[in-house]
Amino acid sequence: MSRSCYTVECRSEASHARLGVLETVHGTIRTPVFMPVGTRATVKAMSPRELEELNVQIILGNTYHLMLRPGSGLIRRAGGLHKFEDWNHPILTDCGGFQVFSLAPLRKIKPDGVEFTSHIDGSRHFLGPVESMRIQRDLGSDIVMAFDECTPYPCTRDAAEKSLAMTKRWEEISREQPLDDHQLRFGIVQGSVYHNLRAESAAHVASLDFDGCAIGGVSVGESQEEMFDVTSFVAPLLPEDKPRYLMGVGTPKQILESVKFGVDMFDCVMPTRLARHAAAFMRGGDTLPAKAGRFAEDFSPLDPRCDCYACMHFTRAYIRHLLNVNEILGARLLTIHNIHYFIALMERIRAAIADGTLESQGDSIL
Amino acid sequence: MSRSCYTVECRSEASHARLGVLETVHGTIRTPVFMPVGTRATVKAMSPRELEELNVQIILGNTYHLMLRPGSGLIRRAGGLHKFEDWNHPILTDCGGFQVFSLAPLRKIKPDGVEFTSHIDGSRHFLGPVESMRIQRDLGSDIVMAFDECTPYPCTRDAAEKSLAMTKRWEEISREQPLDDHQLRFGIVQGSVYHNLRAESAAHVASLDFDGCAIGGVSVGESQEEMFDVTSFVAPLLPEDKPRYLMGVGTPKQILESVKFGVDMFDCVMPTRLARHAAAFMRGGDTLPAKAGRFAEDFSPLDPRCDCYACMHFTRAYIRHLLNVNEILGARLLTIHNIHYFIALMERIRAAIADGTLESQGDSIL
Repeated sequence: MSRSCYTVECRSEASHARLGVLETVHGTIRTPVFMPVGTRATVKAMSPRELEELNVQIILGNTYHLMLRPGSGLIRRAGGLHKFEDWNHPILTDCGGFQVFSLAPLRKIKPDGVEFTSHIDGSRHFLGPVESMRIQRDLGSDIVMAFDECTPYPCTRDAAEKSLAMTKRWEEISREQPLDDHQLRFGIVQGSVYHNLRAESAAHVASLDFDGCAIGGVSVGESQEEMFDVTSFVAPLLPEDKPRYLMGVGTPKQILESVKFGVDMFDCVMPTRLARHAAAFMRGGDTLPAKAGRFAEDFSPLDPRCDCYACMHFTRAYIRHLLNVNEILGARLLTIHNIHYFIALMERIRAAIADGTLESQGDSIL
Repeated sequence: MSRSCYTVECRSEASHARLGVLETVHGTIRTPVFMPVGTRATVKAMSPRELEELNVQIILGNTYHLMLRPGSGLIRRAGGLHKFEDWNHPILTDCGGFQVFSLAPLRKIKPDGVEFTSHIDGSRHFLGPVESMRIQRDLGSDIVMAFDECTPYPCTRDAAEKSLAMTKRWEEISREQPLDDHQLRFGIVQGSVYHNLRAESAAHVASLDFDGCAIGGVSVGESQEEMFDVTSFVAPLLPEDKPRYLMGVGTPKQILESVKFGVDMFDCVMPTRLARHAAAFMRGGDTLPAKAGRFAEDFSPLDPRCDCYACMHFTRAYIRHLLNVNEILGARLLTIHNIHYFIALMERIRAAIADGTLESQGDSIL
């Protein structure tokens, strides 16, 4: 039986958007929430102190990367992932499935999981629902994701059906594995773009009474239209009283629309990855190519409407110079700015749900 | 005429060590002081806020690198180097000579300076005393270094003599160039390892009445013994009432000994460069190879005697993991730790001069 860890505090009248509170032993999360990705026990270029200053509520860790380096046993002996990386707030870990399936042809799917070759040193490993739950228990994350197959895209109906059958069995096994008392466990809905399979998967996940429900396989190559179609179809099928997490999504616009479909949680590498590619998110949702020559003598901030550390202290000209000569501070300032953009966007969205203006504000909230 | 910007507040009885106060419009500097190097308008991997938290009093900027990218005109139009890089404390800029002379065979020495080819894009440039002073005026640094030839090592007496003759003429020209009112100007003593040439140079620098005197050419390849020989010979020849700056030095031990010879100011890339090569300075003055496999499960801090952010929050195991997977935070934490080591060393040295125990403490102060 799942505990009651989630409370919906307010619902929009003009959409499915909702405000909620998710309780974990490492703190309370206000939803809708964006989770920056800390793949290898660090959100790239950031210190945990900086994440706190940006009001980041929860970060994500990747089971696949951490099981290889430094290894989940080491992290357990270090006292868990929170202590290891000095992050005393909630952590969600993924199940590792997405990464191992993407290793083809270095992996082989078996009934109990996936046999794969490390992309680092060629060593052999096995990851299935039993192993994934054990590793996530070692890591000590607050939210543990069930082990699924992230159905590739495109995918025939027949292949999607077979994949879903395997995912269902693996989720049942995931549901039975022991975790630590404080850990919440989320199930994942798959089924590709096929409504009947998505409905079947949603009903199955609901029947297993997880602490939360995720929508997987919607950020793997399908069009934005298909993503919106699947998300808007699946979200209302999920239990009202549990948090809903749309995995790997997405752009500011995709997050905004998905909130209106009733999604509560998001993660994406976009703010950190684009920062390392010199792109800065701007109010409105577009990005600024911060390395462009036209900013060489632009002494205004990245975004005049932004109040992050980078925008309050440095100019486009300075940041462009740093990027141009490949100084670490350039990537740091853009990362701070981009994470701030996503965190502040979620704060605006929560405020708009609370005062009933989310839908009337339209894209001006971006 | 130089202003009286420097006051010696206390002298050791058992050595030439002294405590002093150097006034600039961007703040007061307590000497002996260590200056981290911010070559391209950033101390590598650090934000200016972090430098402030480490009690860094003054940083260095490199004329050669800044004249090429982003260009001194751009920095002038940005409001000067302080504003450009958001550092509201003192800055010293070097003259660019050391870098252009090291460009051989891409440079040609002429009577008025050095013609050279940019190492970045092959463009042609000229740097002499007139240009160096103009550029440093553009940058707006608090301490401007006269343009000299950094005599190579090893160097015959004859070559050193010719080099010194050129340096003397260039320093005279440097002395005459206009600067902004707030800028202090330091002369540089050269002369290689030859005492009579060093004495001649020291007398010449003193005669030009600079605001401070530097000892150059002692960190370009000579042995530590020769470095100590030259420094201990030159320092007492310099005006008592002016700050003395030993350029590019050095290890903790070299700094400690040079303080006892009467040196007040130091700069070195060692803390930042070694951080990027995974070496952490330890109390005692040695370094720890932080990436070594033996630290994989070492859950103690880098240095148990250190109270920097890295040591108060993270373990050797975590930092080793970050270095191992090449995460930016690894270089950041080691840089914080190493700069903290040098800043804290100077704080211990100043306290020991004040209470008369510098010499009796010996190397235990390292």
